[in-house]
Amino acid sequence: MSTLYGGIEAGGTKFFCAVGTGPNDLPAETQFGTTTPEETIGRAITFFKGQQEREPLTAIGIGSFGPVDPDPTSPTYGYITTTPKPGWAWIDLAGMIQRALGTPIAFDTDVNAAALGEYRWGAGQGLDSFIYLTVGTGIGGGGIINGRLMHGLIHPEMGHIRIPHDWDVDPYPGSCPYHGDCLEGLASAPAIEARWGQTPDTLPADHPAWALEAHYLALGLTNFICTLSPQRIIIGGGVMEQSQLLPLLRQNVPKLLGGYIQAPQILEDIDNYIVLPGLGRRAGVLGAIALASGPVR
Amino acid sequence: MSTLYGGIEAGGTKFFCAVGTGPNDLPAETQFGTTTPEETIGRAITFFKGQQEREPLTAIGIGSFGPVDPDPTSPTYGYITTTPKPGWAWIDLAGMIQRALGTPIAFDTDVNAAALGEYRWGAGQGLDSFIYLTVGTGIGGGGIINGRLMHGLIHPEMGHIRIPHDWDVDPYPGSCPYHGDCLEGLASAPAIEARWGQTPDTLPADHPAWALEAHYLALGLTNFICTLSPQRIIIGGGVMEQSQLLPLLRQNVPKLLGGYIQAPQILEDIDNYIVLPGLGRRAGVLGAIALASGPVR
Repeated sequence: MSTLYGGIEAGGTKFFCAVGTGPNDLPAETQFGTTTPEETIGRAITFFKGQQEREPLTAIGIGSFGPVDPDPTSPTYGYITTTPKPGWAWIDLAGMIQRALGTPIAFDTDVNAAALGEYRWGAGQGLDSFIYLTVGTGIGGGGIINGRLMHGLIHPEMGHIRIPHDWDVDPYPGSCPYHGDCLEGLASAPAIEARWGQTPDTLPADHPAWALEAHYLALGLTNFICTLSPQRIIIGGGVMEQSQLLPLLRQNVPKLLGGYIQAPQILEDIDNYIVLPGLGRRAGVLGAIALASGPVR
Repeated sequence: MSTLYGGIEAGGTKFFCAVGTGPNDLPAETQFGTTTPEETIGRAITFFKGQQEREPLTAIGIGSFGPVDPDPTSPTYGYITTTPKPGWAWIDLAGMIQRALGTPIAFDTDVNAAALGEYRWGAGQGLDSFIYLTVGTGIGGGGIINGRLMHGLIHPEMGHIRIPHDWDVDPYPGSCPYHGDCLEGLASAPAIEARWGQTPDTLPADHPAWALEAHYLALGLTNFICTLSPQRIIIGGGVMEQSQLLPLLRQNVPKLLGGYIQAPQILEDIDNYIVLPGLGRRAGVLGAIALASGPVR
Protein backbone atom coordinates (compact mmCIF):
# COMPACT_ATOMS: atom_id res chain seq x y z
CA MET A 1 0.00 0.00 0.00
CA SER A 2 1.18 3.45 -0.89
CA THR A 3 2.07 5.92 1.82
CA LEU A 4 2.09 9.00 -0.40
CA TYR A 5 0.15 11.91 1.07
CA GLY A 6 -1.24 15.12 -0.30
CA GLY A 7 -1.06 18.42 1.54
CA ILE A 8 -2.82 21.73 0.95
CA GLU A 9 -1.88 24.95 2.64
CA ALA A 10 -5.05 26.84 1.86
CA GLY A 11 -4.10 30.46 2.43
CA GLY A 12 -6.17 33.57 1.91
CA THR A 13 -3.62 34.79 -0.62
CA LYS A 14 -2.34 31.59 -2.18
CA PHE A 15 -2.82 27.84 -2.16
CA PHE A 16 0.28 25.67 -1.81
CA CYS A 17 -0.26 21.99 -2.73
CA ALA A 18 2.26 19.15 -2.54
CA VAL A 19 2.51 15.39 -2.47
CA GLY A 20 5.08 13.42 -0.54
CA THR A 21 5.91 12.07 2.86
CA GLY A 22 8.05 14.75 4.51
CA PRO A 23 10.60 17.52 4.06
CA ASN A 24 13.06 15.27 2.25
CA ASP A 25 10.46 13.67 0.03
CA LEU A 26 8.20 16.14 -1.78
CA PRO A 27 8.16 14.87 -5.39
CA ALA A 28 5.60 17.41 -6.59
CA GLU A 29 4.35 20.80 -5.48
CA THR A 30 2.46 23.73 -6.95
CA GLN A 31 1.31 27.18 -5.84
CA PHE A 32 -1.36 29.48 -7.21
CA GLY A 33 -3.28 32.56 -6.10
CA THR A 34 -6.49 32.29 -4.10
CA THR A 35 -9.25 33.62 -6.37
CA THR A 36 -12.81 32.26 -6.32
CA PRO A 37 -13.47 29.04 -4.39
CA GLU A 38 -14.52 27.21 -7.61
CA GLU A 39 -11.40 28.20 -9.55
CA THR A 40 -8.96 27.78 -6.67
CA ILE A 41 -10.27 24.50 -5.32
CA GLY A 42 -10.60 23.34 -8.91
CA ARG A 43 -6.90 23.92 -9.52
CA ALA A 44 -6.03 21.96 -6.37
CA ILE A 45 -8.23 19.09 -7.52
CA THR A 46 -6.64 19.10 -10.98
CA PHE A 47 -3.16 18.96 -9.42
CA PHE A 48 -3.98 16.02 -7.15
CA LYS A 49 -5.87 14.15 -9.91
CA GLY A 50 -2.73 14.36 -12.05
CA GLN A 51 -0.71 12.97 -9.14
CA GLN A 52 -3.20 10.20 -8.48
CA GLU A 53 -2.92 9.01 -12.06
CA ARG A 54 0.72 8.21 -11.31
CA GLU A 55 0.30 6.92 -7.75
CA PRO A 56 -2.70 6.88 -5.41
CA LEU A 57 -2.71 9.15 -2.37
CA THR A 58 -3.41 7.59 1.01
CA ALA A 59 -4.93 10.76 2.41
CA ILE A 60 -4.90 14.52 1.91
CA GLY A 61 -4.34 17.02 4.70
CA ILE A 62 -5.68 20.55 4.53
CA GLY A 63 -4.50 23.43 6.66
CA SER A 64 -6.83 26.28 5.90
CA PHE A 65 -7.22 29.99 6.53
CA GLY A 66 -10.22 30.60 8.73
CA PRO A 67 -12.16 30.71 10.78
CA VAL A 68 -12.86 27.05 10.02
CA ASP A 69 -14.85 24.25 11.60
CA PRO A 70 -12.29 21.62 12.67
CA ASP A 71 -14.72 19.50 14.72
CA PRO A 72 -15.22 16.11 13.01
CA THR A 73 -18.53 15.65 14.82
CA SER A 74 -19.99 18.89 13.45
CA PRO A 75 -22.25 19.06 10.36
CA THR A 76 -20.03 21.84 8.99
CA TYR A 77 -16.74 20.01 9.65
CA GLY A 78 -14.19 21.02 7.05
CA TYR A 79 -15.89 24.30 6.18
CA ILE A 80 -14.35 27.73 6.05
CA THR A 81 -16.95 29.56 8.16
CA THR A 82 -17.25 33.31 8.87
CA THR A 83 -14.32 34.64 6.87
CA PRO A 84 -14.73 38.20 5.58
CA LYS A 85 -12.90 37.09 2.38
CA PRO A 86 -15.49 37.60 -0.41
CA GLY A 87 -17.05 34.38 -1.66
CA TRP A 88 -15.30 32.12 0.82
CA ALA A 89 -17.68 32.15 3.77
CA TRP A 90 -19.32 28.79 4.46
CA ILE A 91 -17.38 26.96 1.73
CA ASP A 92 -17.12 23.19 2.26
CA LEU A 93 -13.43 23.04 1.42
CA ALA A 94 -12.74 19.56 2.82
CA GLY A 95 -15.94 18.12 1.35
CA MET A 96 -15.25 19.46 -2.15
CA ILE A 97 -11.77 17.98 -2.14
CA GLN A 98 -12.95 14.71 -0.66
CA ARG A 99 -15.78 14.22 -3.14
CA ALA A 100 -13.61 15.06 -6.15
CA LEU A 101 -10.68 12.87 -5.19
CA GLY A 102 -12.20 10.11 -3.07
CA THR A 103 -9.41 10.18 -0.52
CA PRO A 104 -9.70 10.54 3.25
CA ILE A 105 -9.23 14.14 4.36
CA ALA A 106 -7.62 15.55 7.51
CA PHE A 107 -8.55 19.14 8.17
CA ASP A 108 -7.39 21.87 10.54
CA THR A 109 -6.37 25.51 10.62
CA ASP A 110 -3.36 26.62 8.57
CA VAL A 111 -1.49 27.46 11.77
CA ASN A 112 -2.31 24.20 13.54
CA ALA A 113 -1.13 22.33 10.44
CA ALA A 114 2.09 24.34 10.40
CA ALA A 115 2.52 23.71 14.12
CA LEU A 116 2.17 19.97 13.52
CA GLY A 117 4.74 20.13 10.72
CA GLU A 118 7.15 21.96 12.99
CA TYR A 119 6.45 19.46 15.78
CA ARG A 120 7.28 16.52 13.56
CA TRP A 121 10.16 17.88 11.51
CA GLY A 122 10.98 21.46 12.48
CA ALA A 123 11.50 23.86 15.37
CA GLY A 124 8.91 22.22 17.61
CA GLN A 125 10.54 18.80 17.82
CA GLY A 126 10.73 17.39 21.35
CA LEU A 127 8.52 20.10 22.86
CA ASP A 128 5.27 19.48 24.69
CA SER A 129 3.77 22.96 24.42
CA PHE A 130 4.61 25.61 21.83
CA ILE A 131 2.79 28.00 19.55
CA TYR A 132 3.07 28.75 15.84
CA LEU A 133 2.19 32.25 14.67
CA THR A 134 1.89 33.65 11.19
CA VAL A 135 2.03 37.35 10.37
CA GLY A 136 0.89 38.15 6.86
CA THR A 137 -2.46 39.00 5.28
CA GLY A 138 -3.83 38.09 8.68
CA ILE A 139 -2.32 37.14 12.01
CA GLY A 140 -3.08 33.66 13.25
CA GLY A 141 -1.83 31.29 15.87
CA GLY A 142 -2.12 27.63 16.70
CA GLY A 143 0.01 25.15 18.51
CA ILE A 144 0.67 22.03 20.44
CA ILE A 145 -0.31 22.15 24.11
CA ASN A 146 0.18 19.14 26.33
CA GLY A 147 1.28 17.17 23.26
CA ARG A 148 -1.83 17.75 21.15
CA LEU A 149 -3.05 20.41 18.72
CA MET A 150 -5.06 23.26 20.22
CA HIS A 151 -8.79 23.11 19.55
CA GLY A 152 -11.04 23.65 22.57
CA LEU A 153 -14.25 25.48 21.77
CA ILE A 154 -13.37 25.93 18.06
CA HIS A 155 -9.75 26.94 17.54
CA PRO A 156 -7.57 29.82 18.70
CA GLU A 157 -7.92 33.17 16.94
CA MET A 158 -4.78 34.69 18.39
CA GLY A 159 -4.65 37.55 15.90
CA HIS A 160 -7.79 39.04 17.39
CA ILE A 161 -6.56 39.77 20.91
CA ARG A 162 -6.79 43.39 22.05
CA ILE A 163 -3.51 45.13 22.85
CA PRO A 164 -2.66 48.65 24.02
CA HIS A 165 -2.89 51.15 21.16
CA ASP A 166 -1.52 54.64 21.76
CA TRP A 167 -3.62 56.75 19.39
CA ASP A 168 -1.33 59.76 19.80
CA VAL A 169 1.65 57.78 18.51
CA ASP A 170 -0.33 55.81 15.91
CA PRO A 171 -3.65 57.34 14.83
CA TYR A 172 -4.32 54.49 12.37
CA PRO A 173 -7.63 52.99 13.55
CA GLY A 174 -6.86 49.39 12.59
CA SER A 175 -7.95 47.22 9.68
CA CYS A 176 -9.99 44.47 11.32
CA PRO A 177 -13.63 44.55 10.16
CA TYR A 178 -14.68 42.93 13.45
CA HIS A 179 -12.50 44.63 16.05
CA GLY A 180 -10.72 47.59 14.46
CA ASP A 181 -7.48 47.79 16.37
CA CYS A 182 -6.97 44.22 17.55
CA LEU A 183 -3.48 42.76 16.99
CA GLU A 184 -4.30 41.75 13.41
CA GLY A 185 -5.96 45.11 12.82
CA LEU A 186 -2.78 46.92 13.86
CA ALA A 187 0.02 44.64 12.69
CA SER A 188 -1.06 42.54 9.69
CA ALA A 189 0.35 43.31 6.24
CA PRO A 190 -2.82 45.17 5.14
CA ALA A 191 -2.58 47.31 8.28
CA ILE A 192 1.03 48.19 7.54
CA GLU A 193 0.15 49.07 3.95
CA ALA A 194 -2.87 51.17 4.95
CA ARG A 195 -0.91 53.04 7.63
CA TRP A 196 2.17 53.85 5.59
CA GLY A 197 0.83 53.78 2.02
CA GLN A 198 3.35 51.13 0.98
CA THR A 199 3.39 47.35 1.06
CA PRO A 200 5.65 45.92 3.78
CA ASP A 201 8.17 44.56 1.28
CA THR A 202 8.79 48.06 -0.14
CA LEU A 203 9.38 49.72 3.25
CA PRO A 204 13.12 50.18 3.96
CA ALA A 205 14.56 48.26 6.90
CA ASP A 206 15.18 51.48 8.85
CA HIS A 207 11.65 52.83 8.30
CA PRO A 208 9.80 53.66 11.57
CA ALA A 209 7.13 51.18 10.48
CA TRP A 210 9.29 48.36 11.77
CA ALA A 211 9.77 49.67 15.29
CA LEU A 212 6.00 50.10 15.58
CA GLU A 213 5.36 46.67 14.04
CA ALA A 214 7.83 45.07 16.45
CA HIS A 215 6.15 46.87 19.36
CA TYR A 216 2.71 45.53 18.46
CA LEU A 217 3.91 42.01 17.74
CA ALA A 218 5.91 41.97 20.98
CA LEU A 219 2.79 42.96 22.90
CA GLY A 220 1.02 40.04 21.26
CA LEU A 221 3.83 37.60 22.04
CA THR A 222 4.01 38.83 25.63
CA ASN A 223 0.30 38.16 26.06
CA PHE A 224 0.62 34.71 24.52
CA ILE A 225 3.52 33.91 26.87
CA CYS A 226 1.55 35.05 29.92
CA THR A 227 -1.55 33.14 28.82
CA LEU A 228 -0.09 29.89 27.51
CA SER A 229 3.43 29.60 28.89
CA PRO A 230 4.73 28.07 25.64
CA GLN A 231 8.14 26.41 25.62
CA ARG A 232 8.88 28.14 22.30
CA ILE A 233 7.28 30.60 19.88
CA ILE A 234 7.67 29.84 16.19
CA ILE A 235 6.74 32.81 14.06
CA GLY A 236 6.46 32.88 10.27
CA GLY A 237 4.44 34.50 7.52
CA GLY A 238 5.23 37.07 4.85
CA VAL A 239 5.79 40.01 7.18
CA MET A 240 8.40 38.03 9.17
CA GLU A 241 10.46 37.72 5.98
CA GLN A 242 11.61 41.26 6.74
CA SER A 243 14.74 40.12 8.51
CA GLN A 244 15.05 43.23 10.70
CA LEU A 245 11.88 42.26 12.53
CA LEU A 246 12.94 39.14 14.43
CA PRO A 247 15.83 40.81 16.32
CA LEU A 248 13.46 43.61 17.34
CA LEU A 249 10.99 41.07 18.71
CA ARG A 250 13.74 39.35 20.65
CA GLN A 251 14.64 42.73 22.21
CA ASN A 252 11.12 43.90 22.94
CA VAL A 253 9.51 40.79 24.40
CA PRO A 254 11.83 40.42 27.43
CA LYS A 255 11.52 44.17 28.06
CA LEU A 256 7.74 43.94 28.11
CA LEU A 257 7.86 40.91 30.42
CA GLY A 258 9.88 43.06 32.80
CA GLY A 259 11.77 40.19 34.40
CA TYR A 260 8.57 38.76 35.83
CA ILE A 261 8.85 35.33 34.24
CA GLN A 262 12.09 33.86 35.54
CA ALA A 263 12.73 31.39 32.74
CA PRO A 264 16.30 31.07 31.48
CA GLN A 265 14.85 30.28 28.04
CA ILE A 266 13.56 33.87 27.93
CA LEU A 267 16.14 35.67 30.06
CA GLU A 268 19.27 34.01 28.67
CA ASP A 269 18.36 32.29 25.42
CA ILE A 270 15.73 34.38 23.65
CA ASP A 271 17.27 33.56 20.24
CA ASN A 272 16.15 29.97 20.73
CA TYR A 273 12.84 30.96 22.27
CA ILE A 274 11.41 33.13 19.50
CA VAL A 275 12.36 31.47 16.23
CA LEU A 276 11.45 31.32 12.56
CA PRO A 277 9.85 28.11 11.24
CA GLY A 278 12.41 25.33 10.87
CA LEU A 279 10.62 24.29 7.69
CA GLY A 280 10.61 27.83 6.27
CA ARG A 281 7.89 28.57 3.74
CA ARG A 282 7.02 24.89 3.55
CA ALA A 283 5.89 24.68 7.20
CA GLY A 284 2.24 24.94 6.16
CA VAL A 285 2.18 22.46 3.32
CA LEU A 286 4.39 19.98 5.17
CA GLY A 287 2.14 20.39 8.17
CA ALA A 288 -0.81 19.50 5.95
CA ILE A 289 1.05 16.34 4.93
CA ALA A 290 1.72 15.64 8.61
CA LEU A 291 -2.01 16.07 9.27
CA ALA A 292 -2.76 13.54 6.54
CA SER A 293 -0.22 11.04 7.78
CA GLY A 294 -0.56 11.26 11.54
CA PRO A 295 -3.08 11.17 14.32
CA VAL A 296 -4.94 14.34 13.46
CA ARG A 297 -6.10 15.47 16.84
CA MET B 1 -4.45 1.76 53.62
CA SER B 2 -5.98 5.13 54.30
CA THR B 3 -7.04 7.33 51.43
CA LEU B 4 -7.33 10.52 53.41
CA TYR B 5 -5.64 13.48 51.74
CA GLY B 6 -4.56 16.89 52.86
CA GLY B 7 -5.01 20.03 50.79
CA ILE B 8 -3.55 23.50 51.14
CA GLU B 9 -4.78 26.50 49.21
CA ALA B 10 -1.78 28.72 49.86
CA GLY B 11 -3.03 32.20 49.02
CA GLY B 12 -1.26 35.50 49.29
CA THR B 13 -3.91 36.68 51.74
CA LYS B 14 -4.90 33.49 53.54
CA PHE B 15 -4.09 29.81 53.79
CA PHE B 16 -6.98 27.35 53.63
CA CYS B 17 -6.13 23.81 54.79
CA ALA B 18 -8.39 20.79 54.81
CA VAL B 19 -8.31 17.01 55.02
CA GLY B 20 -10.70 14.69 53.27
CA THR B 21 -11.39 13.02 49.96
CA GLY B 22 -13.76 15.39 48.13
CA PRO B 23 -16.56 17.95 48.38
CA ASN B 24 -18.82 15.64 50.39
CA ASP B 25 -16.08 14.44 52.70
CA LEU B 26 -14.05 17.21 54.30
CA PRO B 27 -13.93 16.22 57.99
CA ALA B 28 -11.59 19.05 58.99
CA GLU B 29 -10.62 22.43 57.65
CA THR B 30 -9.00 25.62 58.88
CA GLN B 31 -8.16 29.05 57.55
CA PHE B 32 -5.69 31.68 58.73
CA GLY B 33 -4.04 34.81 57.37
CA THR B 34 -0.82 34.68 55.39
CA THR B 35 1.79 36.41 57.54
CA THR B 36 5.44 35.37 57.57
CA PRO B 37 6.41 32.07 55.91
CA GLU B 38 7.60 30.64 59.23
CA GLU B 39 4.42 31.44 61.09
CA THR B 40 2.01 30.62 58.26
CA ILE B 41 3.62 27.38 57.15
CA GLY B 42 4.05 26.50 60.82
CA ARG B 43 0.30 26.81 61.39
CA ALA B 44 -0.39 24.55 58.40
CA ILE B 45 2.05 21.98 59.75
CA THR B 46 0.45 22.10 63.20
CA PHE B 47 -3.01 21.54 61.67
CA PHE B 48 -1.92 18.53 59.62
CA LYS B 49 0.12 17.03 62.49
CA GLY B 50 -3.03 17.13 64.59
CA GLN B 51 -4.92 15.35 61.83
CA GLN B 52 -2.17 12.78 61.36
CA GLU B 53 -2.38 11.86 65.04
CA ARG B 54 -5.93 10.71 64.32
CA GLU B 55 -5.40 9.18 60.88
CA PRO B 56 -2.38 9.22 58.56
CA LEU B 57 -2.57 11.25 55.34
CA THR B 58 -1.72 9.49 52.07
CA ALA B 59 -0.47 12.70 50.45
CA ILE B 60 -0.85 16.45 50.69
CA GLY B 61 -1.63 18.68 47.72
CA ILE B 62 -0.60 22.32 47.64
CA GLY B 63 -2.03 24.92 45.29
CA SER B 64 0.05 28.02 45.86
CA PHE B 65 0.12 31.68 44.95
CA GLY B 66 3.06 32.38 42.71
CA PRO B 67 4.97 32.51 40.63
CA VAL B 68 6.00 29.01 41.65
CA ASP B 69 8.23 26.29 40.26
CA PRO B 70 5.92 23.37 39.42
CA ASP B 71 8.52 21.33 37.49
CA PRO B 72 9.30 18.14 39.45
CA THR B 73 12.66 17.83 37.66
CA SER B 74 13.82 21.28 38.81
CA PRO B 75 16.06 21.86 41.86
CA THR B 76 13.61 24.54 43.03
CA TYR B 77 10.48 22.39 42.52
CA GLY B 78 7.85 23.34 45.04
CA TYR B 79 9.25 26.82 45.69
CA ILE B 80 7.42 30.11 45.55
CA THR B 81 9.87 32.00 43.32
CA THR B 82 9.82 35.70 42.35
CA THR B 83 6.77 36.92 44.24
CA PRO B 84 6.88 40.57 45.29
CA LYS B 85 5.16 39.54 48.54
CA PRO B 86 7.68 40.48 51.28
CA GLY B 87 9.52 37.51 52.76
CA TRP B 88 7.97 34.93 50.45
CA ALA B 89 10.36 34.96 47.49
CA TRP B 90 12.28 31.69 47.05
CA ILE B 91 10.50 29.92 49.91
CA ASP B 92 10.57 26.11 49.66
CA LEU B 93 6.91 25.70 50.52
CA ALA B 94 6.52 22.09 49.36
CA GLY B 95 9.83 21.05 50.92
CA MET B 96 9.03 22.58 54.31
CA ILE B 97 5.68 20.79 54.43
CA GLN B 98 7.14 17.54 53.18
CA ARG B 99 9.99 17.49 55.69
CA ALA B 100 7.76 18.36 58.64
CA LEU B 101 5.03 15.83 57.86
CA GLY B 102 6.81 13.08 55.94
CA THR B 103 4.03 12.71 53.39
CA PRO B 104 4.30 12.82 49.60
CA ILE B 105 3.50 16.29 48.23
CA ALA B 106 1.77 17.30 45.00
CA PHE B 107 2.37 20.92 44.08
CA ASP B 108 1.01 23.35 41.53
CA THR B 109 -0.33 26.88 41.20
CA ASP B 110 -3.43 27.86 43.17
CA VAL B 111 -5.37 28.31 39.93
CA ASN B 112 -4.26 25.01 38.40
CA ALA B 113 -5.27 23.27 41.63
CA ALA B 114 -8.66 24.98 41.55
CA ALA B 115 -9.03 24.06 37.88
CA LEU B 116 -8.35 20.43 38.75
CA GLY B 117 -10.91 20.56 41.53
CA GLU B 118 -13.48 22.01 39.15
CA TYR B 119 -12.55 19.39 36.54
CA ARG B 120 -13.12 16.56 38.96
CA TRP B 121 -16.13 17.81 40.95
CA GLY B 122 -17.25 21.23 39.71
CA ALA B 123 -17.97 23.35 36.64
CA GLY B 124 -15.25 21.78 34.52
CA GLN B 125 -16.57 18.23 34.57
CA GLY B 126 -16.60 16.56 31.16
CA LEU B 127 -14.63 19.34 29.45
CA ASP B 128 -11.35 18.86 27.65
CA SER B 129 -10.16 22.49 27.65
CA PHE B 130 -11.23 25.22 30.04
CA ILE B 131 -9.65 27.91 32.16
CA TYR B 132 -10.00 28.90 35.79
CA LEU B 133 -9.44 32.53 36.71
CA THR B 134 -9.28 34.21 40.08
CA VAL B 135 -9.72 37.92 40.63
CA GLY B 136 -8.67 39.05 44.07
CA THR B 137 -5.43 40.32 45.57
CA GLY B 138 -3.96 39.31 42.25
CA ILE B 139 -5.38 37.98 39.00
CA GLY B 140 -4.31 34.50 38.01
CA GLY B 141 -5.33 31.84 35.56
CA GLY B 142 -4.73 28.17 34.98
CA GLY B 143 -6.63 25.41 33.38
CA ILE B 144 -7.01 22.10 31.68
CA ILE B 145 -6.04 22.04 28.00
CA ASN B 146 -6.27 18.84 26.03
CA GLY B 147 -7.18 17.03 29.24
CA ARG B 148 -4.14 18.03 31.25
CA LEU B 149 -3.17 20.95 33.49
CA MET B 150 -1.41 23.85 31.79
CA HIS B 151 2.32 24.07 32.45
CA GLY B 152 4.52 24.60 29.41
CA LEU B 153 7.56 26.76 30.07
CA ILE B 154 6.63 27.38 33.73
CA HIS B 155 2.92 28.10 34.18
CA PRO B 156 0.51 30.68 32.84
CA GLU B 157 0.56 34.17 34.34
CA MET B 158 -2.70 35.29 32.80
CA GLY B 159 -3.09 38.30 35.07
CA HIS B 160 -0.09 39.95 33.47
CA ILE B 161 -1.36 40.33 29.92
CA ARG B 162 -1.46 43.86 28.53
CA ILE B 163 -4.87 45.24 27.60
CA PRO B 164 -6.03 48.59 26.20
CA HIS B 165 -6.04 51.30 28.86
CA ASP B 166 -7.69 54.60 28.02
CA TRP B 167 -5.79 57.05 30.24
CA ASP B 168 -8.36 59.80 29.62
CA VAL B 169 -11.14 57.66 31.07
CA ASP B 170 -8.99 56.06 33.78
CA PRO B 171 -5.83 57.95 34.73
CA TYR B 172 -4.91 55.36 37.37
CA PRO B 173 -1.47 54.08 36.31
CA GLY B 174 -1.92 50.51 37.52
CA SER B 175 -0.67 48.65 40.58
CA CYS B 176 1.63 45.99 39.13
CA PRO B 177 5.23 46.47 40.27
CA TYR B 178 6.43 44.73 37.10
CA HIS B 179 4.12 46.03 34.39
CA GLY B 180 2.08 48.93 35.77
CA ASP B 181 -1.17 48.70 33.86
CA CYS B 182 -1.37 45.02 32.95
CA LEU B 183 -4.71 43.31 33.63
CA GLU B 184 -3.80 42.64 37.27
CA GLY B 185 -2.44 46.16 37.60
CA LEU B 186 -5.77 47.61 36.45
CA ALA B 187 -8.36 45.16 37.78
CA SER B 188 -7.12 43.39 40.93
CA ALA B 189 -8.59 44.27 44.32
CA PRO B 190 -5.61 46.48 45.27
CA ALA B 191 -6.02 48.37 41.97
CA ILE B 192 -9.72 48.98 42.69
CA GLU B 193 -8.91 50.18 46.18
CA ALA B 194 -6.09 52.45 45.02
CA ARG B 195 -8.19 53.94 42.22
CA TRP B 196 -11.34 54.63 44.21
CA GLY B 197 -10.01 54.95 47.76
CA GLN B 198 -12.28 52.17 49.01
CA THR B 199 -11.99 48.42 49.22
CA PRO B 200 -14.12 46.59 46.60
CA ASP B 201 -16.51 45.20 49.21
CA THR B 202 -17.42 48.73 50.37
CA LEU B 203 -18.16 50.09 46.88
CA PRO B 204 -21.93 50.17 46.15
CA ALA B 205 -23.18 47.92 43.36
CA ASP B 206 -24.08 50.93 41.18
CA HIS B 207 -20.69 52.61 41.62
CA PRO B 208 -18.91 53.37 38.29
CA ALA B 209 -16.04 51.22 39.55
CA TRP B 210 -17.93 48.14 38.49
CA ALA B 211 -18.51 49.14 34.86
CA LEU B 212 -14.80 49.87 34.55
CA GLU B 213 -13.87 46.64 36.32
CA ALA B 214 -16.16 44.64 34.03
CA HIS B 215 -14.66 46.37 31.00
CA TYR B 216 -11.11 45.42 31.97
CA LEU B 217 -12.00 41.86 32.96
CA ALA B 218 -13.98 41.42 29.73
CA LEU B 219 -10.94 42.54 27.73
CA GLY B 220 -8.94 39.91 29.57
CA LEU B 221 -11.51 37.18 28.98
CA THR B 222 -11.79 38.13 25.32
CA ASN B 223 -8.04 37.77 24.92
CA PHE B 224 -8.04 34.41 26.69
CA ILE B 225 -10.87 33.20 24.44
CA CYS B 226 -9.00 34.28 21.29
CA THR B 227 -5.75 32.74 22.51
CA LEU B 228 -6.90 29.46 24.06
CA SER B 229 -10.40 28.77 22.73
CA PRO B 230 -11.57 27.38 26.07
CA GLN B 231 -14.82 25.44 26.24
CA ARG B 232 -15.71 27.33 29.42
CA ILE B 233 -14.34 30.08 31.65
CA ILE B 234 -14.68 29.56 35.40
CA ILE B 235 -14.02 32.75 37.31
CA GLY B 236 -13.74 33.10 41.05
CA GLY B 237 -11.88 35.10 43.68
CA GLY B 238 -12.91 37.74 46.17
CA VAL B 239 -13.73 40.46 43.63
CA MET B 240 -16.14 38.14 41.80
CA GLU B 241 -18.16 37.87 45.02
CA GLN B 242 -19.63 41.24 44.02
CA SER B 243 -22.65 39.71 42.36
CA GLN B 244 -23.23 42.62 39.94
CA LEU B 245 -19.98 41.79 38.16
CA LEU B 246 -20.75 38.46 36.51
CA PRO B 247 -23.77 39.73 34.50
CA LEU B 248 -21.66 42.65 33.27
CA LEU B 249 -18.96 40.23 32.09
CA ARG B 250 -21.55 38.15 30.28
CA GLN B 251 -22.74 41.31 28.50
CA ASN B 252 -19.33 42.74 27.66
CA VAL B 253 -17.44 39.68 26.42
CA PRO B 254 -19.72 38.90 23.43
CA LYS B 255 -19.73 42.60 22.52
CA LEU B 256 -15.95 42.70 22.48
CA LEU B 257 -15.78 39.51 20.41
CA GLY B 258 -17.97 41.30 17.87
CA GLY B 259 -19.62 38.18 16.48
CA TYR B 260 -16.29 36.93 15.15
CA ILE B 261 -16.28 33.61 16.99
CA GLN B 262 -19.37 31.77 15.81
CA ALA B 263 -19.81 29.46 18.78
CA PRO B 264 -23.33 28.92 20.07
CA GLN B 265 -21.84 28.51 23.56
CA ILE B 266 -20.86 32.20 23.41
CA LEU B 267 -23.59 33.60 21.16
CA GLU B 268 -26.55 31.79 22.68
CA ASP B 269 -25.51 30.39 26.04
CA ILE B 270 -23.08 32.82 27.65
CA ASP B 271 -24.56 32.12 31.11
CA ASN B 272 -23.12 28.62 30.87
CA TYR B 273 -19.90 29.79 29.25
CA ILE B 274 -18.68 32.26 31.87
CA VAL B 275 -19.50 30.77 35.25
CA LEU B 276 -18.57 30.96 38.91
CA PRO B 277 -16.71 28.00 40.46
CA GLY B 278 -19.01 25.05 41.03
CA LEU B 279 -17.14 24.40 44.27
CA GLY B 280 -17.45 28.02 45.42
CA ARG B 281 -14.82 29.18 47.89
CA ARG B 282 -13.63 25.60 48.35
CA ALA B 283 -12.46 25.23 44.73
CA GLY B 284 -8.86 25.88 45.71
CA VAL B 285 -8.59 23.63 48.73
CA LEU B 286 -10.58 20.83 47.07
CA GLY B 287 -8.34 21.22 44.03
CA ALA B 288 -5.35 20.76 46.31
CA ILE B 289 -6.93 17.53 47.57
CA ALA B 290 -7.53 16.51 43.94
CA LEU B 291 -3.85 17.21 43.22
CA ALA B 292 -2.88 14.96 46.13
CA SER B 293 -5.19 12.15 45.10
CA GLY B 294 -4.88 12.10 41.32
CA PRO B 295 -2.40 12.02 38.50
CA VAL B 296 -0.82 15.38 39.13
CA ARG B 297 0.24 16.36 35.69
